[in-house]
Amino acid sequence: MDRRKFFRAGSLATIGAAVLNPFRTDQELIDFDSLTGKDKKAKNIIFLVSDGMSSGTLNMADIYLNRKMGRSSNWIQLYKDQRVSRALMETASASSIVTDSAAGSSSWGGGFRVNNGSLNVGPNGEEHLPILQKFKMSGKKVGCVTSVPITHATPAGFCINSNSRNAQPEIAKDYLRIGFDIMMGGGDKYFNAEKRTDGEDLYSQYKAKGWQIVRNTQEMNKAGNNNPVLGIFGEDAMPYSLDRSSSKELTNSTPTLAEMTQKAIDHMKGSKKGFALQVEGGKVDWGAHSNDVGALLYDQVAFDEAIKVAIDFAEEDGETLVIITTDHGNANPGIIYGKEANDNFDSLQNYKQTNEWILNEIKPTSTTAQVKELVDYANGHAITDEEAKTILSYYTGTFGKQNGLYNYKNVPFEKYAEIQKKYNSIGWISMQHSADHVELAMFGPGSELLKPFVKNTDLHYLMLQAAEVENKF
Amino acid sequence: MDRRKFFRAGSLATIGAAVLNPFRTDQELIDFDSLTGKDKKAKNIIFLVSDGMSSGTLNMADIYLNRKMGRSSNWIQLYKDQRVSRALMETASASSIVTDSAAGSSSWGGGFRVNNGSLNVGPNGEEHLPILQKFKMSGKKVGCVTSVPITHATPAGFCINSNSRNAQPEIAKDYLRIGFDIMMGGGDKYFNAEKRTDGEDLYSQYKAKGWQIVRNTQEMNKAGNNNPVLGIFGEDAMPYSLDRSSSKELTNSTPTLAEMTQKAIDHMKGSKKGFALQVEGGKVDWGAHSNDVGALLYDQVAFDEAIKVAIDFAEEDGETLVIITTDHGNANPGIIYGKEANDNFDSLQNYKQTNEWILNEIKPTSTTAQVKELVDYANGHAITDEEAKTILSYYTGTFGKQNGLYNYKNVPFEKYAEIQKKYNSIGWISMQHSADHVELAMFGPGSELLKPFVKNTDLHYLMLQAAEVENKF
Repeated sequence: MDRRKFFRAGSLATIGAAVLNPFRTDQELIDFDSLTGKDKKAKNIIFLVSDGMSSGTLNMADIYLNRKMGRSSNWIQLYKDQRVSRALMETASASSIVTDSAAGSSSWGGGFRVNNGSLNVGPNGEEHLPILQKFKMSGKKVGCVTSVPITHATPAGFCINSNSRNAQPEIAKDYLRIGFDIMMGGGDKYFNAEKRTDGEDLYSQYKAKGWQIVRNTQEMNKAGNNNPVLGIFGEDAMPYSLDRSSSKELTNSTPTLAEMTQKAIDHMKGSKKGFALQVEGGKVDWGAHSNDVGALLYDQVAFDEAIKVAIDFAEEDGETLVIITTDHGNANPGIIYGKEANDNFDSLQNYKQTNEWILNEIKPTSTTAQVKELVDYANGHAITDEEAKTILSYYTGTFGKQNGLYNYKNVPFEKYAEIQKKYNSIGWISMQHSADHVELAMFGPGSELLKPFVKNTDLHYLMLQAAEVENKF
Repeated sequence: MDRRKFFRAGSLATIGAAVLNPFRTDQELIDFDSLTGKDKKAKNIIFLVSDGMSSGTLNMADIYLNRKMGRSSNWIQLYKDQRVSRALMETASASSIVTDSAAGSSSWGGGFRVNNGSLNVGPNGEEHLPILQKFKMSGKKVGCVTSVPITHATPAGFCINSNSRNAQPEIAKDYLRIGFDIMMGGGDKYFNAEKRTDGEDLYSQYKAKGWQIVRNTQEMNKAGNNNPVLGIFGEDAMPYSLDRSSSKELTNSTPTLAEMTQKAIDHMKGSKKGFALQVEGGKVDWGAHSNDVGALLYDQVAFDEAIKVAIDFAEEDGETLVIITTDHGNANPGIIYGKEANDNFDSLQNYKQTNEWILNEIKPTSTTAQVKELVDYANGHAITDEEAKTILSYYTGTFGKQNGLYNYKNVPFEKYAEIQKKYNSIGWISMQHSADHVELAMFGPGSELLKPFVKNTDLHYLMLQAAEVENKF
């Protein structure tokens, strides 16, 4: 197949020419392919999504790593080393300038903008075949790993069609029906007969079709490459990286995002026709929804470790396109100016637990002293009696309980983030997604196709083009 | 002078090679200079700063223009057209991960990080010669235009040395002593004998040295090119673009940032050895400090129009490097997810006045009905009695007055932005700068020197290198 027929007029020449000489108009004069030997197919694609990552989240992780470890994040280091092409990406959905994760993933997965909440089903009910099904039909192995339920919006947007992202029990069955090669994350409640409202035992159904079911790191490591793998490591989402690293039990039982990424690559890399893998740092988004900076920061760092796994493989492999991005901003966190900004920000290095952990430890019967002790242990600093009492008041009914996405227990995330602000210099615009254009980086064959500004839907076609898979399904 | 001796090893080849082929190791094999005819000097440099522009501000202006006008911002269009090189820039100062504008401009202006508040004076008192003085010594014409006082931190960081950015009355005298070619913005109180505490009449002193003093658009347009120009168009800062466009008087009397930019270019473009110009959209920062979205958005759009003036000139000229960036984020504004996000954001199209204007119109004797009427006129929508009363309470003393940078009259900017949030879906992390890495774009000769990730100080040396001015002063 002649790859050139996939190129829109001048797309490859243009990006080179723009960098070399912004004044050129004769962009077709130079044959960049022959010049660089770059006419290479992306046999494999690894698509990494830090879900709900505002640019402030990317920057905060880089500044944190620089101050703590004296090194950049892996993502930013790729820029410093000039190893990737970069773009800004517009993130809107069909229904809003501010997308949700279902529409966001569908834009990449199906190539069309859909309404918020939908998975590859357009405003008029039209279904768009998801990219992993296309790649599967073209002979590739396909899979997803995530830190949230494997049936959640972002993996689902690469895999299935559904009117509603909330149909997670059905999505768990869709995966079995369609057949993927490796699917790992949280979501026991969507597979477990005792937890599903229909009482179906999906684990048995998956097993009957030859899947290996793995429920902890040890089992994951043992799974062979000849049969598909379903890895479920949490009732709902997997634990936040920060809470995991403070718990021996969680550290032993649950893999990191980087470990799941490595396993998925190892599982599929033997495929003759290549593979396509989506990796989601899904709880970065949940941390932003909770204004929980310990959750957000350490999960962004965990995502950054998964980037390293993907790039290391791609570098050695030479036939792998790695795409690194996010679906939308969330809460636009930032480190705020002030005399104590450095020390306050560095206090995050001492965090042992997320706000989720702290706030779930507090009971209506807790005392002010106990709340202070908890914070002192988890955040490494004292808070005032007044502040402890304010937190407690949300448990004793003085104030209404706080709502919010993924705030299942209605704990006062928002109030606690406000209290933390003077101690950690971190601010948030809300507990919701933002409309911002987002950062996007590409490494390897196909990365030369990236233009400096793209729409989210463009990535669907770029992936097909890079992999030389004709869009005829 | 052979320009090649300025290149650090491989810097030019590397950027091209990285885009064309991230796997190349033989980066020196191709002579990109001969390939593209790119070994060209930047005779002129135009450095455009949207002060305190978080990435959310850049994105918001682009989304606004797309929805209102069906076109991108000029900045984003440069990406779409692949006409610029891009980078992320680290913005820290010597004293903090969150810089102020004095240290930010000094990093570019002097090439060294200094403490917040200082202008090209290092932590140990060492003075760094500012870039416009270097360019002046090399024979170029030099100048600054801004929408804040011309003596403010960002222009001053390119021009002078001072222990304190607050020394604006002295900075006004420094400019005269050093001698620039065109300096325009606000700041009458630092030049006017009746307003200066020392009673000195700087206008007369400037005139005596041959400067043309211009105080409105008509006078600006008439100023000739043979003598330097001091343009002062406001007591302190110039008016916000939104308030200006709603006032016939202000529209007639004060130039836009784009008009000042055009004038400055026209004034200096005849220079045989070229020119260097700094253009600051200074009130983008003030709008962010006030969480005043009408102020912020329309001043960002005004900045965007100045970009067009600079690029149009540079494109025709062919010897001009245009640098477009910001010194730091501020308040990280974003458009927040919600059913009404589109309509709420579009309501900004109906804004007639800034929050500064609204809040300065309210008096302790205003009635609830009057407050509601003001908002209805200025923002195009009703607010509740409750909200009007809350605003009024800050004037009648029920609550303390609100402080904040540039909030000279202590009006309730923060509270009003909180009230507006449900009507316009705009959120803010604080009323202060953020530590975020920021966006940077370059057009024209020298832009090929830009690496994908830079420190703010790198720009000082890049400008000298692009202009082939040896750093020996």
